[in-house]
Amino acid sequence: MSRGVFVGRFQPPHWGHIEVIKWCLDRVDELIIVVGSAQESHTLKNPFTAGERIEMLLLGLRDAAVDTSRVMIVPVPDIAMNHVWPRYLEMLLPRFHVVFSRNPLVTRLFTEYGYRVESPPAFSRGEYSATRIRSLMLRGDESWKRLVPPSVARFIEEIKGVERLVTISGRD
Amino acid sequence: MSRGVFVGRFQPPHWGHIEVIKWCLDRVDELIIVVGSAQESHTLKNPFTAGERIEMLLLGLRDAAVDTSRVMIVPVPDIAMNHVWPRYLEMLLPRFHVVFSRNPLVTRLFTEYGYRVESPPAFSRGEYSATRIRSLMLRGDESWKRLVPPSVARFIEEIKGVERLVTISGRD
Amino acid sequence: MSRGVFVGRFQPPHWGHIEVIKWCLDRVDELIIVVGSAQESHTLKNPFTAGERIEMLLLGLRDAAVDTSRVMIVPVPDIAMNHVWPRYLEMLLPRFHVVFSRNPLVTRLFTEYGYRVESPPAFSRGEYSATRIRSLMLRGDESWKRLVPPSVARFIEEIKGVERLVTISGRD
Amino acid sequence: MSRGVFVGRFQPPHWGHIEVIKWCLDRVDELIIVVGSAQESHTLKNPFTAGERIEMLLLGLRDAAVDTSRVMIVPVPDIAMNHVWPRYLEMLLPRFHVVFSRNPLVTRLFTEYGYRVESPPAFSRGEYSATRIRSLMLRGDESWKRLVPPSVARFIEEIKGVERLVTISGRD
Amino acid sequence: MSRGVFVGRFQPPHWGHIEVIKWCLDRVDELIIVVGSAQESHTLKNPFTAGERIEMLLLGLRDAAVDTSRVMIVPVPDIAMNHVWPRYLEMLLPRFHVVFSRNPLVTRLFTEYGYRVESPPAFSRGEYSATRIRSLMLRGDESWKRLVPPSVARFIEEIKGVERLVTISGRD
Amino acid sequence: MSRGVFVGRFQPPHWGHIEVIKWCLDRVDELIIVVGSAQESHTLKNPFTAGERIEMLLLGLRDAAVDTSRVMIVPVPDIAMNHVWPRYLEMLLPRFHVVFSRNPLVTRLFTEYGYRVESPPAFSRGEYSATRIRSLMLRGDESWKRLVPPSVARFIEEIKGVERLVTISGRD
Repeated sequence: MSRGVFVGRFQPPHWGHIEVIKWCLDRVDELIIVVGSAQESHTLKNPFTAGERIEMLLLGLRDAAVDTSRVMIVPVPDIAMNHVWPRYLEMLLPRFHVVFSRNPLVTRLFTEYGYRVESPPAFSRGEYSATRIRSLMLRGDESWKRLVPPSVARFIEEIKGVERLVTISGRD
Repeated sequence: MSRGVFVGRFQPPHWGHIEVIKWCLDRVDELIIVVGSAQESHTLKNPFTAGERIEMLLLGLRDAAVDTSRVMIVPVPDIAMNHVWPRYLEMLLPRFHVVFSRNPLVTRLFTEYGYRVESPPAFSRGEYSATRIRSLMLRGDESWKRLVPPSVARFIEEIKGVERLVTISGRD
Repeated sequence: MSRGVFVGRFQPPHWGHIEVIKWCLDRVDELIIVVGSAQESHTLKNPFTAGERIEMLLLGLRDAAVDTSRVMIVPVPDIAMNHVWPRYLEMLLPRFHVVFSRNPLVTRLFTEYGYRVESPPAFSRGEYSATRIRSLMLRGDESWKRLVPPSVARFIEEIKGVERLVTISGRD
Repeated sequence: MSRGVFVGRFQPPHWGHIEVIKWCLDRVDELIIVVGSAQESHTLKNPFTAGERIEMLLLGLRDAAVDTSRVMIVPVPDIAMNHVWPRYLEMLLPRFHVVFSRNPLVTRLFTEYGYRVESPPAFSRGEYSATRIRSLMLRGDESWKRLVPPSVARFIEEIKGVERLVTISGRD
Repeated sequence: MSRGVFVGRFQPPHWGHIEVIKWCLDRVDELIIVVGSAQESHTLKNPFTAGERIEMLLLGLRDAAVDTSRVMIVPVPDIAMNHVWPRYLEMLLPRFHVVFSRNPLVTRLFTEYGYRVESPPAFSRGEYSATRIRSLMLRGDESWKRLVPPSVARFIEEIKGVERLVTISGRD
Repeated sequence: MSRGVFVGRFQPPHWGHIEVIKWCLDRVDELIIVVGSAQESHTLKNPFTAGERIEMLLLGLRDAAVDTSRVMIVPVPDIAMNHVWPRYLEMLLPRFHVVFSRNPLVTRLFTEYGYRVESPPAFSRGEYSATRIRSLMLRGDESWKRLVPPSVARFIEEIKGVERLVTISGRD
């Protein structure tokens, strides 16, 4: 049995993430999705809690008919020691054999630690980007809803996620 | 959809845990299993890493033919603030509606925080106990293997878990 | 008896803070003033220690003839978990019933946590601002002294606060 | 103006504490009461949160007609570095000139750091002891109520403090 | 060039440590001595600060005419994650090729991480033991001075180390 | 015997550092070199681990024929409390009598704490600067090699340090 890891912050999860996850699941039997910076929320860069991000990932994967029984989602708080970080993940996760990442730091850290790292293709990277989605939300441009699975859009409405982002962008 | 939480340290997972998990799954659609003290390993009380404990839980649940697609397993490092701990879990986990626990501290903390807490029955508590299993391991008594699912016993052999426990019990 | 909380960093305390505190004391019997980021000092944004800030608050409130027996001042170090922060304050403080804040993040966090949040008026916000005071100090413009109570200005002179700010703004 | 510091955990505050505080207030103009181990609660040794302990101290001091305008109560979370601890307190507190303590570690740390430390008399130490109070509570012996100010006893009843202690003393 | 690591707490350094260090220096060109639990001091088990322990090690090695230019002494604060600890050391230290240890946990952790671990002989273990030295100090038995190099004994007298230990053993 | 401290991040060590260290060694018998931000690595500002930085310092000092038996190199992780930082260093290091620094914050913190601080001359500061070296590395300009001792340049090549820096500067 093969197991891979895919690391992201998922602020919020979007179609690009879903495509990458499907691509990974073509290559391994089980995929561990690490929800990084799990301690962060309520900031412009990290508006959603780890729990909310996990819930959105589950909803998005179901929208896309992904077999979630082959997926494990794990929130991981940061530790401020890059060199140590891959071993910290190893401590928290079931054994894995490959790391999927386009992030240069993640790639470098796991390569130096001795893991095989594979780079998924950039599924419409320009379009599907969490940074772009948050920026549309802040501008009041509802087109962000096309960039995420429909259940994710509904979830964000339900928890008043856009309102949260707009509020915390305000000034004292 | 209803979702519950069950918290444990699972050092190691045994038949008692499996029974409780099945009991919980009769009451909720989805169960989040929190692997607590996730930063701990290689001590007499916490010999296994969180990753190893997750792997053993998955193996044990499959031995027991539990539908793991209804289960989510999440490693959670301790924070040293009891009053804050339920909210910390809330930050890390998808929303849940009930907490299953026989642990007095967990019960108290979540009750004070306003959650419904249910106490699963004590499935042969005297027999199935992680403390007892670790103590049998230390004495070289192989009867511990009957107290855990067979795949868990095999996993512990594979990672030389008993040897680890015996080694770290040694003196300088 | 009613008790409220007012959160700030007070780098340094100025007449605007004093006005807000008086406004709050018109609405509650007791006011807890939280001196946030209590671990910070000796930076451009946070030049003063929590202890110095508490001392300045006490001096300023006495200058303004505020009844300090109705005020409690509490230094609170940051925790890097926004979702958890209101409960962390709850752990450290006597029970309170209302939060006074114009800060969007504080407002949002306590509102989501279920507290009533009231927004004090912006007493000459453009003029009385700690950011502006620190910037006048750095430029050697003594007009900052008019923006803080006289005892606060004297305290800052006594501890050579402006010299500290200017020194740490220097380059290696 | 003279200012002193008195450090304790106050689990819970009792008549012995009140006597010491009065003794200190005979020697200094202002007294800072540090509520130590402020992150701890819901354990056998530290059942109450820092906020609860502050509230009880205020109630007890009022029962004893102590002038609370001369008292400042500050919750202080532990840092795990004894040598550094006095300077950490210095960072969080207004300047002080003397430390009151019967605790050998506190006495030693502040003496080595260069502070004057004075030892208050042991007001009926055998009788008034937080350890003894918690142990009476656990045994269901209501005589603990005589050892604390009446408002403190009422507060503990109101928050179901004895029930909390008994609950968390239970076994899994 | 070969480099080894020797880990200890050195509370305080004694002749047994010196013998082990000499034994190690017969096997490698350079030896890194890790002073563990560097954040600890002023407790019965860890009375001395990391800085004091480093100073004593230097004095003791000079008493024993060890070539200190081949030795590097490094204080290392604990991290509460055993699985991660060897990589944390790797982050802080120059590259090393072998670990010298009689401590079962250190041995196990570095062996699992893939390092060669060698066990130095137990030079009069019964006699030379830091636990025994601290216990003699507490009893007022001056024979501990024979168990440490003479400069170490003088250093402990100079910093009033025995008085510190006796003081903190006192009761509130 | 006199002992001084010199604090830096050494990302990477260069000829300017070596000159300062020689200047310090003309003034004290022993010099403690503190490798600050020891937890950091694999970032644009802090590409190298503390261990790598120590190794480079040793190599560079040997290139410059500095007597390393008079030098002690100590990695020190940050603590996020400036006021407390000098005492934290005091906890970790052998006693020292003077601090050498051109850094305004270090100078201020140790002066306020009561230490003598001396400012070494700025040996060709414009030329020898770690910031400039990292920026040349990122541009692929090999002239950085003239700014560091030859063994340091070789070490950086051996560990593929420039490749690391370039990789982590990449975008997701």
